[in-house]
Amino acid sequence: MIKKGSLLILYSTSDGKKFFVKNEETSFSTHLGIVNITDNLEYGVSIKTHTGNSFIVLRPTLDEIIMKIKRHTQILYPKDIGYILLKLGLRDGDTVVEAGTGSGALTISLAYAVSPSGKVFSYEKRKDFLEKAYKNILLSGFQDNVVLKNSDVYENGFDENSVDAVFLDLKEPETLIEKSYNVLKTGGMLGILVPTTNQVSSVLKRIQDFNFNDIEVSEIMIRKYKLVPERLRPEDTMVGHTGYLLFARKMI
Amino acid sequence: MIKKGSLLILYSTSDGKKFFVKNEETSFSTHLGIVNITDNLEYGVSIKTHTGNSFIVLRPTLDEIIMKIKRHTQILYPKDIGYILLKLGLRDGDTVVEAGTGSGALTISLAYAVSPSGKVFSYEKRKDFLEKAYKNILLSGFQDNVVLKNSDVYENGFDENSVDAVFLDLKEPETLIEKSYNVLKTGGMLGILVPTTNQVSSVLKRIQDFNFNDIEVSEIMIRKYKLVPERLRPEDTMVGHTGYLLFARKMI
Amino acid sequence: MIKKGSLLILYSTSDGKKFFVKNEETSFSTHLGIVNITDNLEYGVSIKTHTGNSFIVLRPTLDEIIMKIKRHTQILYPKDIGYILLKLGLRDGDTVVEAGTGSGALTISLAYAVSPSGKVFSYEKRKDFLEKAYKNILLSGFQDNVVLKNSDVYENGFDENSVDAVFLDLKEPETLIEKSYNVLKTGGMLGILVPTTNQVSSVLKRIQDFNFNDIEVSEIMIRKYKLVPERLRPEDTMVGHTGYLLFARKMI
Amino acid sequence: MIKKGSLLILYSTSDGKKFFVKNEETSFSTHLGIVNITDNLEYGVSIKTHTGNSFIVLRPTLDEIIMKIKRHTQILYPKDIGYILLKLGLRDGDTVVEAGTGSGALTISLAYAVSPSGKVFSYEKRKDFLEKAYKNILLSGFQDNVVLKNSDVYENGFDENSVDAVFLDLKEPETLIEKSYNVLKTGGMLGILVPTTNQVSSVLKRIQDFNFNDIEVSEIMIRKYKLVPERLRPEDTMVGHTGYLLFARKMI
Repeated sequence: MIKKGSLLILYSTSDGKKFFVKNEETSFSTHLGIVNITDNLEYGVSIKTHTGNSFIVLRPTLDEIIMKIKRHTQILYPKDIGYILLKLGLRDGDTVVEAGTGSGALTISLAYAVSPSGKVFSYEKRKDFLEKAYKNILLSGFQDNVVLKNSDVYENGFDENSVDAVFLDLKEPETLIEKSYNVLKTGGMLGILVPTTNQVSSVLKRIQDFNFNDIEVSEIMIRKYKLVPERLRPEDTMVGHTGYLLFARKMI
Repeated sequence: MIKKGSLLILYSTSDGKKFFVKNEETSFSTHLGIVNITDNLEYGVSIKTHTGNSFIVLRPTLDEIIMKIKRHTQILYPKDIGYILLKLGLRDGDTVVEAGTGSGALTISLAYAVSPSGKVFSYEKRKDFLEKAYKNILLSGFQDNVVLKNSDVYENGFDENSVDAVFLDLKEPETLIEKSYNVLKTGGMLGILVPTTNQVSSVLKRIQDFNFNDIEVSEIMIRKYKLVPERLRPEDTMVGHTGYLLFARKMI
Repeated sequence: MIKKGSLLILYSTSDGKKFFVKNEETSFSTHLGIVNITDNLEYGVSIKTHTGNSFIVLRPTLDEIIMKIKRHTQILYPKDIGYILLKLGLRDGDTVVEAGTGSGALTISLAYAVSPSGKVFSYEKRKDFLEKAYKNILLSGFQDNVVLKNSDVYENGFDENSVDAVFLDLKEPETLIEKSYNVLKTGGMLGILVPTTNQVSSVLKRIQDFNFNDIEVSEIMIRKYKLVPERLRPEDTMVGHTGYLLFARKMI
Repeated sequence: MIKKGSLLILYSTSDGKKFFVKNEETSFSTHLGIVNITDNLEYGVSIKTHTGNSFIVLRPTLDEIIMKIKRHTQILYPKDIGYILLKLGLRDGDTVVEAGTGSGALTISLAYAVSPSGKVFSYEKRKDFLEKAYKNILLSGFQDNVVLKNSDVYENGFDENSVDAVFLDLKEPETLIEKSYNVLKTGGMLGILVPTTNQVSSVLKRIQDFNFNDIEVSEIMIRKYKLVPERLRPEDTMVGHTGYLLFARKMI
């Protein structure tokens, strides 16, 4: 059964239109009639509107969830998320610490990576951000894998210990390298996202004060193509920059 | 306990050297003495060589496994794997079909994404490739999530039905679009990797004969930076091309 | 003296505003008063408006001219122009053939490269394009280095012979490779701009029928940065694609 | 007539092999016999070896000259040179100041841009660099457009005034912004090449102390393709980084 409050897709078999619906509404109006959202929906079932048109219920990809959540902070792109999850090497059952929560886009992604049995502890100083992020996490259906913490990590640090990974996505990550090192287990991965080259320099400098290894600084770029087979060419514009990624593994 | 036959890392706490070892050897020689590989190793434990030097046992990341397996086919890069897994939207319990197996790099990655309870059915015509791929999969420890099939998919197609995703990484994917469409469930994702623009055109053309949606053609590029904070700059050379990625979702 | 009809810049020394003015107007109105454009203007001189504000007369760069001309065809970008001129190896006194003229952006650039004593012969089938291009060329001041020809090159080919370079920027350049080869002198350079990969394939295939050497297919990408020294980062969006460039040198 | 001491290409009409020869040798040995280099050679002529094989004399492009000169400093790439010349907006007759000379690659390019009647004043502290650069400039044939100066610009600054452009390619360009500003005429262009982001930040910060306009920071990337029309794809590796380019125009 589809989790209450999570996002589902209603896909029209007549004209291919897609609607993203919260599994909490009792009905949803479309240009092809009203769809009743019943309690025991399953992905893949077909349901009819009151005017007899068919819709299929689909499970959204992580990608689609991220793109549909409400953002009050900088966007996190699929190109970056995919690489972050791979480099952190997260698996079912792992424990990961994140700061800050922001809109929860990465929180959802980390929860997805450690599900079904792992946990993400996500720290955010601003209570209003945390409340909005929680709503987004509900949409993803991964709330059981997330613990949100309303705390200032610059002041208070992290409560956990010996975690598999730490991810920092906030303004001054260089001031949290020591706290991150201490909360990681041996072999655990640190990941950091920063938008500017000045921050990369600050973080790189600070990382070298600790026993980290396998350090990498990189950017991921995606180039999309127009879908015309006989006139194949990249799209006219592309995303020029989202952020720089840093990874390092705690050794000793 | 660490799975028999899977890859582990021996990390020297004296000089930071890393060794990738198959958990099957009974002993492993290093420049700091011989390490006994016992039967009940756990990640994170510290073991001593016969000369008294310490090594810590670490779990390799997916990234590291992929980079360490023996390849007889084109390399698959982390930048691409991360994005593929995200776009396919795979989760614990999903079923995915892959052709061909090649060296098993993507097989391992797909298995990782659907573990602990999902399955990857991977097809490969060449028996010698399959045998080598199996050895690689053992290194990853994900063998329980993989079913290898020695069959020519161009001839015989796929045995499964209603799978969550299909991934094609072979020479003429355009001839397998119909078979892929048929084996996918509604809402299931098709992913394809091809090295040339001519193949992109052929696949795009063929995809439009079926009821696919959310079609995307893209390339992922990674740009790495030198690790010098006060002289930050990208590395002198970068990977110029691995392949073009195509994604599409089956819509009834 | 500044050429009649060519573009000049009026730069306000009070507030830094720039105006692009055709040296043909007798007066030009600004927010700081009316500037009289006299007959014997020189670059670098300072002139006053009727209200006593100063403007300096500047020579526009090729880059600025290209960006200011009126376009009825696809934009040609400085990143591509710079590389094209370099690869064609044009110098003062050279002769170059171009098809088609389009908006004249490349015509101006080629004329700039062969000036003061060289010539560009530019072919365009559409008379309306040619008239608009001529106006643009007048703005650049390089009209003495350009001969515009209203002719269909697919039908009629080129009138010149033994030229230093040929540049093709039209839909089916693969049908003009033979004509281009014939009009080039030994060692002369062929340059081609096409937007799609399919055209690259067609041209590459055809080029191999002739005795060309030093063949190159490439793309030029430019990534611009925000001008904030303490928060240095690339701009959020960038140009994703303009076109593919092909170069080849006629041998014997 | 081809300038004494400049580079020419001997191109074999039998097998397409190319030799770069200094027009100063009296004879040149090839696998197809010895070529006599006579005093009055012209580009395009055909000459025979002592065994009767034909070679054609070709003029090298700027691109080829740059690639053939002897380097003792970092390489300057065509992708960057093309864009630099365009942005500086140089023309026949212009005056430009350069520091440092390095191997002379950019000196040659600037001389090419202001030829036949313009001048490049190029400063270099190290006498040994200057001597090697001079030999390279001779190869290009543009020596009449270049004045080399053996002086430390950090100490002594520039002797010229009211020049059309200044180009800085040395370690601490931020310390030369004021001197560059002073030597430029109103509307003149400043160009700077630096390899690191830290230098970009330093220069950007300093530039803002002066009345510069039209400031741009950018990188040029080139992606080359394999020459196989039916299997079109980018090359496996590409240049990841050469340098960051900064441009600014002196106002008032």
